[in-house]
Amino acid sequence: MNDGEDKITSWFADQSDAPADKFPIGIGDDMAQVTADKGSVLITTDMLLDGTHFDLSEAGFEQAGYKAMAASLSDCAAMATIPVCAVVAVALPVKTPPEALMDLHKGIVAAGSMFGCYLVGGDITAWAGDGRFAINVTMLSKPGGCLPVRRSGAKVGDIVCVTGTLGGAIKDKHLHFTPRVEEALRMTEIVTINSMMDISDGISTDLKRICDKSGVGVTLDGRDVPLSMAAMESDDPLGAAMNDGEDFELLFTLSPKGYGKLIDEWDLATPISNIGVIRKETGISMVMKDGSVVEVVPKGYDHL
Amino acid sequence: MNDGEDKITSWFADQSDAPADKFPIGIGDDMAQVTADKGSVLITTDMLLDGTHFDLSEAGFEQAGYKAMAASLSDCAAMATIPVCAVVAVALPVKTPPEALMDLHKGIVAAGSMFGCYLVGGDITAWAGDGRFAINVTMLSKPGGCLPVRRSGAKVGDIVCVTGTLGGAIKDKHLHFTPRVEEALRMTEIVTINSMMDISDGISTDLKRICDKSGVGVTLDGRDVPLSMAAMESDDPLGAAMNDGEDFELLFTLSPKGYGKLIDEWDLATPISNIGVIRKETGISMVMKDGSVVEVVPKGYDHL
Repeated sequence: MNDGEDKITSWFADQSDAPADKFPIGIGDDMAQVTADKGSVLITTDMLLDGTHFDLSEAGFEQAGYKAMAASLSDCAAMATIPVCAVVAVALPVKTPPEALMDLHKGIVAAGSMFGCYLVGGDITAWAGDGRFAINVTMLSKPGGCLPVRRSGAKVGDIVCVTGTLGGAIKDKHLHFTPRVEEALRMTEIVTINSMMDISDGISTDLKRICDKSGVGVTLDGRDVPLSMAAMESDDPLGAAMNDGEDFELLFTLSPKGYGKLIDEWDLATPISNIGVIRKETGISMVMKDGSVVEVVPKGYDHL
Repeated sequence: MNDGEDKITSWFADQSDAPADKFPIGIGDDMAQVTADKGSVLITTDMLLDGTHFDLSEAGFEQAGYKAMAASLSDCAAMATIPVCAVVAVALPVKTPPEALMDLHKGIVAAGSMFGCYLVGGDITAWAGDGRFAINVTMLSKPGGCLPVRRSGAKVGDIVCVTGTLGGAIKDKHLHFTPRVEEALRMTEIVTINSMMDISDGISTDLKRICDKSGVGVTLDGRDVPLSMAAMESDDPLGAAMNDGEDFELLFTLSPKGYGKLIDEWDLATPISNIGVIRKETGISMVMKDGSVVEVVPKGYDHL
């Protein structure tokens, strides 16, 4: 009997408040249907694993659901796009109680509803033997007022900026962060952002990705890297800010003129820090507190 | 250093032949961009697990990739929609060699390329300790010549049909099946299909889903259920056809007049069998070889 599966699917469908004009087909059929009024959609998929991306026994299902959705919302922000909907698939350990799925749902919806992003479908499956919890979120977004902002657009002379503060996110922030969707959409209303991504593996690694894609290098000023409280409590605050990852802040570049305009007109609470400048020569170097210059080696988290 | 992850992402991007006019942004950025020329997209997500949906040591990475994509293509077929693209996320056991990802890619592309469905993004992550292989495919499709065919449209008097033959798919077919995309698109060119889904959990379970969604029941003729070779080799061929699941054939209903037209004009090799009729009274009953009538209890695979 498949009553368990079908009952849970019905429960999920009953919770949905996705408007029928935008989502003519929702949870419970073979696929969900999403209207695409802007001529294109953007798509991102991310798999989060118990023991790798969170510790389920500490975080619980609700916060695991929140983090999985928030990480995908952060990808929408990274391209300055508007979140539309998500489908979520989970692999459950044997004997996971149905209440766990309700907790999970609560976390998913809490994150999505911050930005009008609906849960429109999913898949629930269970390990046959031993197996830890895995959750996969795939999210669709649509372009905002500009073309989606790519990693590859950094130009020589661009100012390199980050939102918020960096480092030590693993202590707590990685489960509770607010994705920078509002910030990304607001900044692209004010100015043209040349390149952007979200910081998941630490800026030493993620900046290299922007540089590699754009064919440029960067000179950072270590004194300007914004340190989180958690980073400041560590033995190596700047190292934590550069390498810890999971900050889910925005890393972006724009012209010096654009930077001036952005700072003048910025009206959100989240701080923006100017941490360096894009240069022609490849590589990443950083000016330290004592005026010395060091080469930055990517030390962020490697998923493989 | 994240060279491993970035190198593999680059390798995946290099393999892509997704046309830039349809996919302005492909593998390697925070999201992929997909043009949506028909005003809506459909989305499905499915997580397949080693030990549950296949045995990786037997199937291998290539066939696991093939099956995961084929299962999602089967969902596109189930709604009579045209596959567009997919994003694929994987959770790898520790020490999975890079060659395994190339094998996986081969299987993914082999399935997708049958129907012009491009791989446009993904996520590669690894278990921190013990953990078996998991693969999640999310696929986008677009409407064909008709509205997407739902589960909920079965009408009293409709003929109930299936494509192909049923039962015993676990022996081999579940890894190698051809999704019925072509069949679904062709039949909806010929006639109006009132309800449809693909058979993943066995028709005893999947027919109940159509009946529940449509508020109807069905009388089957057990003598007309098409048995696969594998089913015929089993102790209970009809039971295998009803309950085994993983057939990935189409289960659909249409008016008697439509059925006549479909059979007259059907020009594909895949057989279509008339196995029963939709009735007003809920429940599923089946006429047996000896003329007796039995109530069908859903016995398909329950994922929970």
